[in-house]
Amino acid sequence: MPSISNKGKLMPESPIRKLVPYAEIAKRNGNKVYHLNIGQPDIKTPEVAINAVKNIDIKVLEYSHSAGFESYRTKLSQYYRDHGLPIETEDIIITTGGSEALLFAMGSTMDVDDEIIIPEPFYANYNGFSIASGVKVVPVISTIDDGFALPPIAAFEKLITPKTKAILICNPGNPTGYLYSKEEIMQLAAIVKKHDLFLIADEVYREFIYDGEEHFSVMNVPGLEEHAIMIDSVSKRYSMCGARIGCIVSKNKAVMATAMKFAQARLSPPTFAQIASEAALETPQSYFDEVITEYKDRRDTLIAELQKIEGVKVASPKGAFYCIAQLPVDNADQFAQWLLESFDYNKETVMVAPAAGFYSTPNVGLNEVRLAYVLKKEDLIKSVAILKEALKAYKN
Amino acid sequence: MPSISNKGKLMPESPIRKLVPYAEIAKRNGNKVYHLNIGQPDIKTPEVAINAVKNIDIKVLEYSHSAGFESYRTKLSQYYRDHGLPIETEDIIITTGGSEALLFAMGSTMDVDDEIIIPEPFYANYNGFSIASGVKVVPVISTIDDGFALPPIAAFEKLITPKTKAILICNPGNPTGYLYSKEEIMQLAAIVKKHDLFLIADEVYREFIYDGEEHFSVMNVPGLEEHAIMIDSVSKRYSMCGARIGCIVSKNKAVMATAMKFAQARLSPPTFAQIASEAALETPQSYFDEVITEYKDRRDTLIAELQKIEGVKVASPKGAFYCIAQLPVDNADQFAQWLLESFDYNKETVMVAPAAGFYSTPNVGLNEVRLAYVLKKEDLIKSVAILKEALKAYKN
Repeated sequence: MPSISNKGKLMPESPIRKLVPYAEIAKRNGNKVYHLNIGQPDIKTPEVAINAVKNIDIKVLEYSHSAGFESYRTKLSQYYRDHGLPIETEDIIITTGGSEALLFAMGSTMDVDDEIIIPEPFYANYNGFSIASGVKVVPVISTIDDGFALPPIAAFEKLITPKTKAILICNPGNPTGYLYSKEEIMQLAAIVKKHDLFLIADEVYREFIYDGEEHFSVMNVPGLEEHAIMIDSVSKRYSMCGARIGCIVSKNKAVMATAMKFAQARLSPPTFAQIASEAALETPQSYFDEVITEYKDRRDTLIAELQKIEGVKVASPKGAFYCIAQLPVDNADQFAQWLLESFDYNKETVMVAPAAGFYSTPNVGLNEVRLAYVLKKEDLIKSVAILKEALKAYKN
Repeated sequence: MPSISNKGKLMPESPIRKLVPYAEIAKRNGNKVYHLNIGQPDIKTPEVAINAVKNIDIKVLEYSHSAGFESYRTKLSQYYRDHGLPIETEDIIITTGGSEALLFAMGSTMDVDDEIIIPEPFYANYNGFSIASGVKVVPVISTIDDGFALPPIAAFEKLITPKTKAILICNPGNPTGYLYSKEEIMQLAAIVKKHDLFLIADEVYREFIYDGEEHFSVMNVPGLEEHAIMIDSVSKRYSMCGARIGCIVSKNKAVMATAMKFAQARLSPPTFAQIASEAALETPQSYFDEVITEYKDRRDTLIAELQKIEGVKVASPKGAFYCIAQLPVDNADQFAQWLLESFDYNKETVMVAPAAGFYSTPNVGLNEVRLAYVLKKEDLIKSVAILKEALKAYKN
């Protein structure tokens, strides 16, 4: 029998998906499961986006341009400029989700055995994209005690080798919710310029920032034009994860010309979803105001409730819609499985994402979980109450 | 300035897209361009597919399962069984186009520097996917004089090394239109079994077969279950290239479990397009009957007209909607450019795809072009008349 690739063997299982069979057990046991594990928001997609697709009048569902509809790229560049990002139409290639944008960014800048430095914990699929691209992830640990702030720049510098090609950040962060300050971004800018690296910034949660702080994009750093690559997506901004539309953005012409070759090989991003995404740009500001108010409320609720549980430590997120919580357990993986398989509180339980899967360093974050606050406030309160009972029961 | 990857430098430009700037010159010169270069059919997408999307009633455009909607996979497996292919729901992962299915197939079975044998001329993007995957393409030449039949199996055997992991075929072929016979498939099956390789078959043109011949799928070879990987797509079958929905199909559980890890990393295939693709399965047989009749007519017209031109040699395609024509020119690349930039016949010209880009061996197919018969019959007649005049003018 022919064997699968080593790359395929190394590809990690999603830290979330591997719990799915246990969630099925919970349901078979008749228990309701509150999903704190996933980033699928319950927020409505703007009607203007869905209606654009409902109202299409086409006879042939054709390929689009490999870089995406020009009309969409033009309007999207205007959207960015309206938000203070100096981005032109030609700086954008529309991709199939932020996922493909990351693959294009890695493929365009890195070869096999090249290294990419990523502050951990990080979005688990960065591991998968790196393995698929033959690239080695070099993690630099950020800690819950520092609220997952940027590790000291000296920690990055120590890790840079001739193989290092890029630093990758997620800002605001999934799974930490941490928002990098302008100063932190400027420190990163200085180090990538000094060592001639790319700075790849996954900014898909840009709009989800609370407490009045401002997002500072890598696209806003003067002199960083040749180094900065921005990853974006409509998934969270408009609660349309199923569209699978994102983009790669850079002022570096060589990077964009190369990414375009990857884009041409796969022909085009999905047409229906581009129609919806272009229309979504007409979403009124009131939609975002409501959504941000809702998420801020959810965050405040989740954090306040978690802090009431003895032994739980939580870093207060400034953006996105996740937080990392440290639990009084030895192994959050086993605890998460037990929650689904063996526990219920009045026929209800919760599903959490063990945080170890968000670290690349082995045996770190074993007692941490990622919680997504994409549920209604009442459900969050209930979920934390269940978690509290579960921790009591688990101890015994 | 940080530099792009070697991989990125190696990525080929699409042999079609690189002519696009010249097509723009033709248009600026006021000339109408007949596109014989692309595989974007003018055939209508089945209304049932478009209407399914127009009639959706959703509030949130959510991720789907990473393998695609279960309902879609189940119906699709029924479609295959109705067409004589013994495929079950769990043998299918829905992908973003056939493109992603090929990337998953390569990623799941091949590592950096592994080799894949492909009869050439082949679909040009196989080069791009191979480079993106770090895989080395080993071509085996098929010739216009043999109508692009399978090269002798000894030619394959000579190329097999310890690094060889798979043989990849496109059946029926883009760009050749050649349909492999059952005997040819059985020969390939024997050699992959003997050498413990995978046989990856891109069968996206399966329904486009003329002259009453039958398609023989790699999924139909008894005992090939662990070796066969089928690539499919809705793009051509339903003239919905812009959906970007395809699938990878295999009975090999290790391959499918591995492909699933790649699928999970990118979360899900596009939701709108899956809704359209699932509905497309309800397309009445009359649609296909009409489409096949139309394509057969177009093929017959194109081939007959081409054969009238002195010095043009053409292999009659048995399937898909392309043919390779040998022209009485030294360099079809320059000729194609000249057609757009410097030629017109009553303010009209044609765009063709130089075939060299479909060969991996350098300096082969230099005098060949790929012609797609995706235009109306009258336009095909006009296009060949223009080509005839152009060849006369070019000679002088």
